[in-house]
Amino acid sequence: MSQSSFQKLFFALALANISIPPSSSHTTSVTEANVARGVILQLHDKSVLDFRTISLEEPPKAQLQPFLDAEAAGSLTASSVRPDRLARVAYDVVSENKLFQFYESLVDVSTGKLVGQELIDPKHQAPLTLGEFDHLVKAVWRSPLFKEAIAEFHLPEGFEVIVEPWPYGGPDPDEESTRYFQGLCFAQDTRNGNPDSNFYAYPLPLIPVMDCKNREVVRIDRLATGGKEDGLVKGTHASKILEHCKGAEYVPELLENGTRKDLKALNVWQPDGPSFTVTDESLIEWQKWRFRVGFNHREGATIHDIRYDGRSVMYRLSISEMTVPYADARAPFQRKQAFDFGDGGAGTCANNLELGCDCLGHIKYFDSTNTTSDGTTSVSSNVICLHEEDNGIGWKHTNWRTGRAVVTRNRELVVQFIITLANYEYIFAYKFDQAGGITIETRATGIVSVVNIDPGKTSDYGNVVSPGALAQNHQHIFAVRIDPAVDGPNNTVIVEESHPVPFSPERNPAGNFYEIQQTPILTSQGLDAAPHHNRVVKIINKAKRNPISGKPVGYKFIPSPTQKLLAQPGSIQARRAQFTNHHVWVTKYKDGELFAGGRYTLQSRDEVDGVADAAKRGDAVEDTDVVVWNVFGLTHNPRVEDWPVMPVEIHQLHIKPADFFSANPAIDVPSNKNLSSKLVEKESCCQDKTH
Amino acid sequence: MSQSSFQKLFFALALANISIPPSSSHTTSVTEANVARGVILQLHDKSVLDFRTISLEEPPKAQLQPFLDAEAAGSLTASSVRPDRLARVAYDVVSENKLFQFYESLVDVSTGKLVGQELIDPKHQAPLTLGEFDHLVKAVWRSPLFKEAIAEFHLPEGFEVIVEPWPYGGPDPDEESTRYFQGLCFAQDTRNGNPDSNFYAYPLPLIPVMDCKNREVVRIDRLATGGKEDGLVKGTHASKILEHCKGAEYVPELLENGTRKDLKALNVWQPDGPSFTVTDESLIEWQKWRFRVGFNHREGATIHDIRYDGRSVMYRLSISEMTVPYADARAPFQRKQAFDFGDGGAGTCANNLELGCDCLGHIKYFDSTNTTSDGTTSVSSNVICLHEEDNGIGWKHTNWRTGRAVVTRNRELVVQFIITLANYEYIFAYKFDQAGGITIETRATGIVSVVNIDPGKTSDYGNVVSPGALAQNHQHIFAVRIDPAVDGPNNTVIVEESHPVPFSPERNPAGNFYEIQQTPILTSQGLDAAPHHNRVVKIINKAKRNPISGKPVGYKFIPSPTQKLLAQPGSIQARRAQFTNHHVWVTKYKDGELFAGGRYTLQSRDEVDGVADAAKRGDAVEDTDVVVWNVFGLTHNPRVEDWPVMPVEIHQLHIKPADFFSANPAIDVPSNKNLSSKLVEKESCCQDKTH
Repeated sequence: MSQSSFQKLFFALALANISIPPSSSHTTSVTEANVARGVILQLHDKSVLDFRTISLEEPPKAQLQPFLDAEAAGSLTASSVRPDRLARVAYDVVSENKLFQFYESLVDVSTGKLVGQELIDPKHQAPLTLGEFDHLVKAVWRSPLFKEAIAEFHLPEGFEVIVEPWPYGGPDPDEESTRYFQGLCFAQDTRNGNPDSNFYAYPLPLIPVMDCKNREVVRIDRLATGGKEDGLVKGTHASKILEHCKGAEYVPELLENGTRKDLKALNVWQPDGPSFTVTDESLIEWQKWRFRVGFNHREGATIHDIRYDGRSVMYRLSISEMTVPYADARAPFQRKQAFDFGDGGAGTCANNLELGCDCLGHIKYFDSTNTTSDGTTSVSSNVICLHEEDNGIGWKHTNWRTGRAVVTRNRELVVQFIITLANYEYIFAYKFDQAGGITIETRATGIVSVVNIDPGKTSDYGNVVSPGALAQNHQHIFAVRIDPAVDGPNNTVIVEESHPVPFSPERNPAGNFYEIQQTPILTSQGLDAAPHHNRVVKIINKAKRNPISGKPVGYKFIPSPTQKLLAQPGSIQARRAQFTNHHVWVTKYKDGELFAGGRYTLQSRDEVDGVADAAKRGDAVEDTDVVVWNVFGLTHNPRVEDWPVMPVEIHQLHIKPADFFSANPAIDVPSNKNLSSKLVEKESCCQDKTH
Repeated sequence: MSQSSFQKLFFALALANISIPPSSSHTTSVTEANVARGVILQLHDKSVLDFRTISLEEPPKAQLQPFLDAEAAGSLTASSVRPDRLARVAYDVVSENKLFQFYESLVDVSTGKLVGQELIDPKHQAPLTLGEFDHLVKAVWRSPLFKEAIAEFHLPEGFEVIVEPWPYGGPDPDEESTRYFQGLCFAQDTRNGNPDSNFYAYPLPLIPVMDCKNREVVRIDRLATGGKEDGLVKGTHASKILEHCKGAEYVPELLENGTRKDLKALNVWQPDGPSFTVTDESLIEWQKWRFRVGFNHREGATIHDIRYDGRSVMYRLSISEMTVPYADARAPFQRKQAFDFGDGGAGTCANNLELGCDCLGHIKYFDSTNTTSDGTTSVSSNVICLHEEDNGIGWKHTNWRTGRAVVTRNRELVVQFIITLANYEYIFAYKFDQAGGITIETRATGIVSVVNIDPGKTSDYGNVVSPGALAQNHQHIFAVRIDPAVDGPNNTVIVEESHPVPFSPERNPAGNFYEIQQTPILTSQGLDAAPHHNRVVKIINKAKRNPISGKPVGYKFIPSPTQKLLAQPGSIQARRAQFTNHHVWVTKYKDGELFAGGRYTLQSRDEVDGVADAAKRGDAVEDTDVVVWNVFGLTHNPRVEDWPVMPVEIHQLHIKPADFFSANPAIDVPSNKNLSSKLVEKESCCQDKTH
């Protein structure tokens, strides 16, 4: 197969941003975005346009699947039909009376033709752009309302106000459907001259709200600063609002005692280079795994067409949505609820990673693109890193008769991206192992969201993590979307549990027997974790049997029984996050149905066309193209130790083969001695320090 | 302080085997064991003795705690009173009529005096020794019963019978209290001439049982080999019992296609050596942590006197017990239930680790000792390894205003030991991190226990993982013992949960509020995980408040809601494993109360003086010296992928500070770029493989 056919495929793949690849391909893809831009500009040539995103449209599965199968089989030819390369362009048409119309249009970037145009129902808000965040900051600075409000506070000398743009959140039930942004306000101690002095240590109790139509601050919300004794009351604070706050630095040069000196280097050294190959700029091959990596502005890194040793495992794997609702009962904090994928895009907020900082060893980076409001597209570099990690022992056995130990390491291939959302960060990783397993790891870190609290008070709404700074209780609830293809597209989901069996002479004479119960999921639905029954979700292919066990081949995962959304049913927080109602959802595959929280989450009051709605269709899901969603979370009641930057809180979802293979696929991993390991002798560490 | 006072302390510490240290100290400790042996030999000079273990007796806490506090404060002097150095010697006195009397005696090894002697109630069985395993194998080989039974099978040419010694397990309710051992039987294909050819692939359906009194095989238990259609019936197999079995090799030289060739080296390189120091051969200091490591034949590695930056965190941390009950309803499998700590000792079964095999980087090993039946003691080398690991990103924040990212790595210090129990292995690790957290990790690996199954059949009792080999369903249930000392010995356990709050104008007007409920544990008891309430177990010190939050200082963990024992209440399996009834136990500290499953588990019918009995005392446990036990497990219904050696199944218990510190203790970890990281360029991995 020629390089160009591979590249065609690459572009036909699930890269919602036009490009990932470095080097030569950038040009092409920026060029393609420019083609799409040109088509849209021409289409609306009498109007003012505000571009939001230009992204590659994933082809319908019915088109892409045969292409991928042919490619995997090595049977693609020059005459093979390739899915069209389409760009989805999201943009506003701004009319003279400042009415915005939000469109999503599809452009064939090869032919330069418009192939679809959708005017989005005005009940939805378009996802935010970073440009809108800039508008908010500018609007606040020119707002007389804000100037007046901030003047009340008598900030100490040397402090400057910082306005941090946030989505408005879920509006109250009776509010108008105006597009708003809000700013959380802090003060920065500029006396040290360091622009990275941590302003979150000095929270200010006011939130300017901008109406997007005129880009004007229309309201200043005042925040309560009281404690337990004050209930929902606002306005208890003194005007010297920062007097009791205290700096909390994290950049090394501002630490009072500097960084610790006793941590010695630990380097990962791969003398022969990495074990993976990257072909065609998105095709990754490693240890019998073969998959494509994609990246889009909404989901960040996505994984496509996952195959192991030539057998298909998944069509697509992605982190679909997350929501972060806050539990402070005092208005306007009921609105404080982010949807970090739907509101603005995890891909849009992805960090540009740096060598030697975010991972160790040999690292391959992938780039993406950003689009600005005039529709021009530029490269965003290093948004994904790919590298190998050692995760301890993989398997070991010592023959007690001979003393011979065979031990292998557990090498993993990691596709990682990191997003920053104002104060907070998430580290997402897809990890492939040699035993046929895939782990989806989330790490929560960054700076917890704090509000001002009066001196000496404590609160039911959170924990005082720094003098004057209340870190509010909140949850993080994630949804991972698994589009399986276990030995082909037609799969069935089985719930498998282990149950005690009553004593009986025939079945359980000594009481030690327990039985495995299997229940197939016949129609689309939500279901929950059940660790007391050791509930396992298995995705099987009924048409393929394991030659050893005789059971259908499958993959499985144990859903984590993490706490579900705590907000009251019927509350706005709950209405907009219906996907959090179950730990597992099983739905019938439908093109474009990718987002657990619905297509448009920004400022929503209800989840629309999310996974809960998809499940409600009651589709037959047995032995067909099924999609499985896993929802898990973290109830985060902050500790003082989470300040000023919190240590990672890690969650892992392990998806493992279950009678998919005929043996442990890692049995042929070499058990060579690692020759670089070193014995610690007396002289290197074990001095008696008492001398 | 002089070296000798440190060494005194070291020996006074919780090292139940006389020695851990390498080099010079071995001699001393073997010498000390010899002193103890001599005292016992003299005491019973008319009798035949059979030694089991000689181990260091941990001093009573009331003696040791003041010593440790003084040591930590640097106020030890030459005249400080040190706990006596006692050896506990476990041995049988064999009378002429072959009656065994099991004693445990205490010897002061400094003075050479007997200071205690206990004749153990004959209702208990002494823990097994590896010597007894040898007796079993020898007894089987000289048994006419066995010869006769094995002759029925017509083993193929080139196959040799292997007898694998096992504890007898829990006897049936009506059985006599005879001390037995049993042998699981397999055949080894010797035609390849490799002594490590995997004999587990050829299970034989018979179990010889040895009576320990005369060391004679008294019975051959016949095993069922049927499938679902056969129920509990035995004797369905043909005499050519191995004809349908198939080899399943794991040693690299026997793999059909050899080991994979595309895995490139990943080395951990610590150019400046490790960051830890080991003083006095058991005192480990690393990144503000300071603790002692111990090792004993029962628990393996134990951790003592854990302090962080001078503040005490725990008095002792250990893995206390585990049980592995099997669920095959067919006799005699109801007896198949190991207690791998109590039955024979995890320390006794610890692997002698090898450089470059079990961990990477710079490794410090610790040794232990073994005692043989004549009471002589020798060194067992490298039973613990100590090394550092990189566990990804520790914390990260990017300032969205400046783009400045600060990112630190999550370095961990790992104390690891590995045990082999016939077919199976466990890897245990205590991991200390820079954010004040301690993780107790268990990895289950090795070869799953299989029995013969007739050709073409499947079973409710397990999964066919290899032709003719049924891997039986089973559970692994572990107990970790946490003896906390959070800023001192007097602690209180709090159960903390997050609960929804009904809508109300006063408390929860918008429905987003949830509340944290705290319940102190007042009397000793068992309690369970409750992830739906986000149940957290907090160990606090009521007398010490966090200066920032005003809350009591504490440490916390989230108990894993893993499935509890599935055996019927009242069954022998359940009666002997009462510790599995709850995920968490809270008891009052009592010297010597270390074992969740009771002091004697071998061949027990009931758990005696385990944690369930301790909890039943109903001791007041508020604001006192409290002990917390965490029980977790794995219901293991084997996959074909678990064969022939299973990929690690990992469980982690995370114990983290909760308002113990005044900020993230890892905030001063350097965020230096790792200069050894390498960019993967086209030439090193990204060749287009289509050319």
